[in-house]
Amino acid sequence: MNNFKNSKMNVDALFLGPKSENAVFFKEMMEYSITEHMHWRSGYHPEDPDLISTVDRYAPEYRDTLYRTEGILNQLSSKLKTTSVPWFSPRYMGHMNADTLMISNLAYVMAMMYNPNNCAQESSPTTTVLEVEAGLDLCAMFGYDVQQAWGHITSGGTVANYEGLWVARNIKTLPLAVAQHPEAQHLLNGKSEKELLNLPVSKILDLIDELKKRHIFEVVRDLTCRGVGIEQGKLGKLLVPQSKHYSWMKAMDILGLGQQNIVQLPVDESYRTDVQKMRETVFSLIERGEPILAVVAVVGTTETGSIDNIKEVIKLREECEQRFGVSFYVHIDAAYAGYACAMFRDENNQFIDYDALIKRYHSEGIFPKEIVWPKPEVYESFKALNQADSITVDPHKVGFIPYSAGAICMKDKRIVDLISYHAAYVFEEVQEKQRKTDKVQNVLLGSSIMEGSKSGATAAAVWAAHRLVPLNLLGYGKVIAAGVTTAHWIIQEINQCEPFIIGDRQFSIAAMPAPDFHMVNFMFRESGNTSLEKQNQLNKRLYELCSYASGRTYSNDFLTSSTSLTHEEYGDTPLKLCRDAHFSDEEWQKVRSVYVLRAAVMTHCLRDKGHFDNYWAELKNIFADKLQQLVDEENKLNHSNYKISV
Amino acid sequence: MNNFKNSKMNVDALFLGPKSENAVFFKEMMEYSITEHMHWRSGYHPEDPDLISTVDRYAPEYRDTLYRTEGILNQLSSKLKTTSVPWFSPRYMGHMNADTLMISNLAYVMAMMYNPNNCAQESSPTTTVLEVEAGLDLCAMFGYDVQQAWGHITSGGTVANYEGLWVARNIKTLPLAVAQHPEAQHLLNGKSEKELLNLPVSKILDLIDELKKRHIFEVVRDLTCRGVGIEQGKLGKLLVPQSKHYSWMKAMDILGLGQQNIVQLPVDESYRTDVQKMRETVFSLIERGEPILAVVAVVGTTETGSIDNIKEVIKLREECEQRFGVSFYVHIDAAYAGYACAMFRDENNQFIDYDALIKRYHSEGIFPKEIVWPKPEVYESFKALNQADSITVDPHKVGFIPYSAGAICMKDKRIVDLISYHAAYVFEEVQEKQRKTDKVQNVLLGSSIMEGSKSGATAAAVWAAHRLVPLNLLGYGKVIAAGVTTAHWIIQEINQCEPFIIGDRQFSIAAMPAPDFHMVNFMFRESGNTSLEKQNQLNKRLYELCSYASGRTYSNDFLTSSTSLTHEEYGDTPLKLCRDAHFSDEEWQKVRSVYVLRAAVMTHCLRDKGHFDNYWAELKNIFADKLQQLVDEENKLNHSNYKISV
Repeated sequence: MNNFKNSKMNVDALFLGPKSENAVFFKEMMEYSITEHMHWRSGYHPEDPDLISTVDRYAPEYRDTLYRTEGILNQLSSKLKTTSVPWFSPRYMGHMNADTLMISNLAYVMAMMYNPNNCAQESSPTTTVLEVEAGLDLCAMFGYDVQQAWGHITSGGTVANYEGLWVARNIKTLPLAVAQHPEAQHLLNGKSEKELLNLPVSKILDLIDELKKRHIFEVVRDLTCRGVGIEQGKLGKLLVPQSKHYSWMKAMDILGLGQQNIVQLPVDESYRTDVQKMRETVFSLIERGEPILAVVAVVGTTETGSIDNIKEVIKLREECEQRFGVSFYVHIDAAYAGYACAMFRDENNQFIDYDALIKRYHSEGIFPKEIVWPKPEVYESFKALNQADSITVDPHKVGFIPYSAGAICMKDKRIVDLISYHAAYVFEEVQEKQRKTDKVQNVLLGSSIMEGSKSGATAAAVWAAHRLVPLNLLGYGKVIAAGVTTAHWIIQEINQCEPFIIGDRQFSIAAMPAPDFHMVNFMFRESGNTSLEKQNQLNKRLYELCSYASGRTYSNDFLTSSTSLTHEEYGDTPLKLCRDAHFSDEEWQKVRSVYVLRAAVMTHCLRDKGHFDNYWAELKNIFADKLQQLVDEENKLNHSNYKISV
Repeated sequence: MNNFKNSKMNVDALFLGPKSENAVFFKEMMEYSITEHMHWRSGYHPEDPDLISTVDRYAPEYRDTLYRTEGILNQLSSKLKTTSVPWFSPRYMGHMNADTLMISNLAYVMAMMYNPNNCAQESSPTTTVLEVEAGLDLCAMFGYDVQQAWGHITSGGTVANYEGLWVARNIKTLPLAVAQHPEAQHLLNGKSEKELLNLPVSKILDLIDELKKRHIFEVVRDLTCRGVGIEQGKLGKLLVPQSKHYSWMKAMDILGLGQQNIVQLPVDESYRTDVQKMRETVFSLIERGEPILAVVAVVGTTETGSIDNIKEVIKLREECEQRFGVSFYVHIDAAYAGYACAMFRDENNQFIDYDALIKRYHSEGIFPKEIVWPKPEVYESFKALNQADSITVDPHKVGFIPYSAGAICMKDKRIVDLISYHAAYVFEEVQEKQRKTDKVQNVLLGSSIMEGSKSGATAAAVWAAHRLVPLNLLGYGKVIAAGVTTAHWIIQEINQCEPFIIGDRQFSIAAMPAPDFHMVNFMFRESGNTSLEKQNQLNKRLYELCSYASGRTYSNDFLTSSTSLTHEEYGDTPLKLCRDAHFSDEEWQKVRSVYVLRAAVMTHCLRDKGHFDNYWAELKNIFADKLQQLVDEENKLNHSNYKISV
């Protein structure tokens, strides 16, 4: 996977840099990327006559069309420069965005010149192979057996989640279909409908093999929901953390399962799915005879970056199988933190023992000595990922790849037969002869995934990133650790930060403690304020002052994002935040929402402690300025109210 | 829409060109596109300290990482050059691929540097606006009222088709939901379930308004299939042409409706949906009391480029409403030929009268005098597009935009409320104040479409293309007409082509007559051959010799694609092809499949008759060479068989 095993990687040399430090290199490589293609064109059948002569090219209409092209690009550049968000700078800490890898941008452009379509290999002889390789890179990172697993790129985590639910849904109806077919039903002889709806995934996948042996797989597949449609309510419940990403609501709608068949799992005080309550929910569903369509666990929630206890989910499934003969599909939504699995793997893709891992982090300088990451239970969660049936992961988040690049990995590729299709015009038969002699195989991605046409350039971008930045602790591990380290230092500084004194008012800053990954949630508090509503207002206004909401982001000093931790999503978990801020429990009961500033700390630029200290000193000044601005606004408003009331 | 109304556009100046004729311009603009962004970075807070010093950048690890980057790009380039397909050349005529617009490639790269995510405008302040504009460009081209319509970019036509079926499905269940809600049911008082399942789309959309007025829209929406899931078989049938794209099979699976609820509409002798049989099918469904979920019509089928008679579909719906009180949703799959709608519009976006259109085509030099395109019924189909409820169209096909860029347009944007969602962390409340003062609105695409995260660069690419190449007969019309003209000439030449004499064997070439758009299907025949099977073998082998199947495409002289016209998809329509080739009807009944070579003629390079004539002369030589190669192979095989039998 890594072609340069013995050479060390410098993180700053991967990115264009906050001041375009690598501009010269990037420009050279960009020129290379496009001229290589231009030479390919001009070298293609050089005997062909010139279709566009020099005379043609100097015609007024021709020049005019080029000038117009330039003019529109001028316009576009002006628009982009006016309102775009400076992700590349450490002054931006909000959504899961940062600088993207130079190599991915360059690989994208290089491949885009050839415009491959990864729907079918015929239209993407190079990049379909790269997509398959990149997918297997991710499978290997998660600890799947690459002989048995498969993965591919999607347009994003949302579509990957849909695809996970799609296979989970279709596999759930296969046993019912088997039981209906006269030549197949003996395979599941004597099983009740309840039993049929609760078979383990691996057992159902073995059924596919059996059906294929008997040449009745296709006909039985037509009896699954794929052929006959969904029977309302029959397939049971989808268990999703209460803090769920809204793509799960969309998924239940799109897949015809109905949003009311989502069961929300409450979170615990760490904002992770509460293991005990999950057990109770699962047991009570089993008791009621309700099948479990799938359990979704999240590795890196969008609001707090929490990492669900995957090991316990897997253990629970085993327990259900043994105690009740009930099983279910497990899908992991690791869109955000999935790439962090690289941090646990050594140069030979082995999952490193915990103690050895921490030692290597420190000896290799991946983390400074004072930081011990991850928490043991987070470590165990990543280790247990290879037991899940499928995993969503977004290269365009912590893979530092430009949009749009999501991915899904599946543990057992046999499952794909439940969703795959063929179309004559794209997927002609591969003849025996061709199979033997030809280098270009005919891999038919569009036949086995949700999407159809898709950019092969995205595959090139992900593939190239994985080649340059290996999916182990010395590659992606090093890049991601920079953000985790910075997040750690930020929380440390926030905790010991002196209050900001603005006129006669005093504001302190507080962070939610010890995140699982690199999401920092923080908030400002005003001394003497006992109203949660008022605190929420304060932070909301601060967010506006630190975002596009107050005008051009380019001229802003600091940019972040925000969210509300509500009772609806988190139950009473945020109550602890309120108590820490000395709000009464009644305040929480009244407002039931805590507004926080939310920063996914992905920058690689502040991993040097000296740089970070300078940054923090500047950030404190910025916070003071923002607070001053807020106080001034309030004074002005009070003054004008006063005038009005006079 | 078009910023340069009075200047004329040169088609050759839009593309890099088959020999990279515009290399200098393209390189200049590419450098501009990336340096603009680099300056944006270096100009951002110039007071910030240097985080990467020159000393850092000369460290061995740093240089080494850059060298590795270069090395991987070398590898990638080598891979791409070895196996990619030369879409840019007129020697490629196969799938819907050709050169792509320079401006779109440049706009893509320019925007990619800023890496916007069009999921939420907060993450794409510039490109979300461009996506909305580009979507409305397409709506206007189709003749929708842009005040009422909306459109957006998808990853491709497949996802656009899913979204069309998604809204068609959800809207079908709204009346049922209304009838269930105590405060809403009076709105549909006394209607039977059958009537509820057959209401016109506009009536159901009006219901949304009524429900909103009563503040019960959300609660009623929860009673649609979105909330409660699909009731197996309840929503009726999806009518799709027999020649359907396989994405419709995937769609019925994914959306939980079941593939068995597809009713296939037979095609007529033009390979279009047979209007009479469609009427019969619809009437018989109505008679049986079976609701019609939606009727899908295709504008540019993937195998023959046929354009369904949209006017008749719309008329049929009106007739059903009047005669039976039965209505249905109409979706158009115009993924392939949708952009051709630009060919019918003048500079003021008016749909031009037929006679005036043909006149302008000739007076403006868009078509040569001897070509009269389109057929009147094709013209009527494009004119009727604005009566459809939604339309799929692929900018990455006849929009000449690089992958992945599909799109969907919807006639009435109220329909989006049936599928839209919100998520707290992406879509914070837009405060009144902000709404008034801020230039950055908070358009939330991810909340109203199927996909989530998506590249804003794609929107920039489509937007820029529409600015440079207006969606009228002088813009896209001119570009697309080049392909239609070339297709016409190819068929003309094929029809008068002398047979190829190879040794003692004689081969003729024949084309399917008069395509609706620019898809040319053709085949070779051997004199004296009475076996359809043998003819299919001949063409299949010729396809292999003209494709990646015979090795590196770069060193091939001509590249095409192929397909089989089968009884399953086309009934007995291909029989005419067999008769024309003097095969007996029994041969067709035996084989039930005609293998054809298939060329979407999209090149802009051969619109000059002189260029075309040279090209055709060369192509005839190539065909002779390929036939010679085929005959040699067969002789060799016969010879070795002879030796074995001896």
